[in-house]
Amino acid sequence: MKSLCAELERTWHDEIPISKAMGIRVGEFANDRLVVRARLEPNINVHGTAFAGSLYAIAALCGWGMTWLQLKVHAIDGSIVIADGRIHYDRPVKSEIVATCRFAADEHATALARLKTDGKTRFPLECSIEANGEIAARFGGDYAVRLEKRRS
Amino acid sequence: MKSLCAELERTWHDEIPISKAMGIRVGEFANDRLVVRARLEPNINVHGTAFAGSLYAIAALCGWGMTWLQLKVHAIDGSIVIADGRIHYDRPVKSEIVATCRFAADEHATALARLKTDGKTRFPLECSIEANGEIAARFGGDYAVRLEKRRS
Repeated sequence: MKSLCAELERTWHDEIPISKAMGIRVGEFANDRLVVRARLEPNINVHGTAFAGSLYAIAALCGWGMTWLQLKVHAIDGSIVIADGRIHYDRPVKSEIVATCRFAADEHATALARLKTDGKTRFPLECSIEANGEIAARFGGDYAVRLEKRRS
Repeated sequence: MKSLCAELERTWHDEIPISKAMGIRVGEFANDRLVVRARLEPNINVHGTAFAGSLYAIAALCGWGMTWLQLKVHAIDGSIVIADGRIHYDRPVKSEIVATCRFAADEHATALARLKTDGKTRFPLECSIEANGEIAARFGGDYAVRLEKRRS
């Protein structure tokens, strides 16, 4: 799992330069739970709290990362894009940004099976951002996945 | 209008460092229409197109900027935060990112009046992102504004 997390973080930093500018790091991954972190400083806004756009981007990458990890775990080569996203901001984030995405395997079993039979599917995922133990923002995104031809 | 646009861009780059990393620039402002631009390169993703998180952030700042400009035009000192945002991605952006927000004064007259009487209000705003003349993403955000004491 650790090497997958390192590969995910490297993919982000190498291929999505703004994720590096945001200082996004993979915190931990344990099958059904991915935690992504970023320091406040590079993501600060005019109020001295976390920029709403950064919070969205970090939550959206958390969901993307969870989808990427699930494909890796199931040895599936797929292309992932977010088709739709929404976020509600509950309170300002004044410390490190911590986003968590959960993936309930039973809930997504049908979508995963559809990927194998139809070559494409969608995973609706939710991520939360916490600050000082309280929910600061709630994100939902629809991730569209297409099978890629396996590289030999 | 030009000096207001320059002040808005300076505010973003000075106080929201990630907006500078994204290369966000104020394109033009003409009362009811604000255009915000960013080069593709710093906002690229694993597919070589614009990162969904950057598209959201740029659209969200376009709406925030429109609110900021409207307050300036009406000589109101207010604090603006986005309370809620949603975006639908229609197609990938493979060139410069161009976000446009329109502010229909008659549509927002009641919300503006409420700010003066109640000291707070909300502006629901929509922004679109175009690529090669086609809509690439549609964004909606609710901007909460509170009056600030006028600085003497």
